[in-house]
Amino acid sequence: MVKLVALYKKPAELEDFDNHYGAVHLPLVRKYPGLRKLEVTRITGAPIGEAKFYMMAEMYFDSRDALDAALASQEGKAVARDILSFAAPLITVFIGEVES
Amino acid sequence: MVKLVALYKKPAELEDFDNHYGAVHLPLVRKYPGLRKLEVTRITGAPIGEAKFYMMAEMYFDSRDALDAALASQEGKAVARDILSFAAPLITVFIGEVES
Repeated sequence: MVKLVALYKKPAELEDFDNHYGAVHLPLVRKYPGLRKLEVTRITGAPIGEAKFYMMAEMYFDSRDALDAALASQEGKAVARDILSFAAPLITVFIGEVES
Repeated sequence: MVKLVALYKKPAELEDFDNHYGAVHLPLVRKYPGLRKLEVTRITGAPIGEAKFYMMAEMYFDSRDALDAALASQEGKAVARDILSFAAPLITVFIGEVES
């Protein structure tokens, strides 16, 4: 499996962020063609010090090709537009191969 | 479920890192008391630009209490000592609640 990981820093307006994330963003993410699994994690702390991030979303696909096709699709472009509208300064995104 | 997430930046010596990670570090991580699942992801890229990270490990526990107990155990202390020995400048760690 391959996954797309989105890490969000803590937003200034938590309630606005949470509302948009749940009501608008996640429904768009769930429309990615070929999405096999979505795991959303609310970050609550760290073993030492404060956590650098607020939320993480992991989107699993069968292959890198399937992930790239999802990003390039109309649904993927809608996700990207939405991120730019509410979370551009907060987000870090990367792609990885799940080994175990 | 609650998870402990370890994100590693790209090390200077990839082969040394990979060897230590696979032969020494992962066997120690697998000894965490109460560990329910371990997912290791090799980060291969990003949708735009370069990925900021090299590897991610996610360790799942039944609860925050179980996670805290694992970190405080002898096995958890061995993991922490090992991290300090090979990856201290590379690692970011946080704890989160899996929502979906």
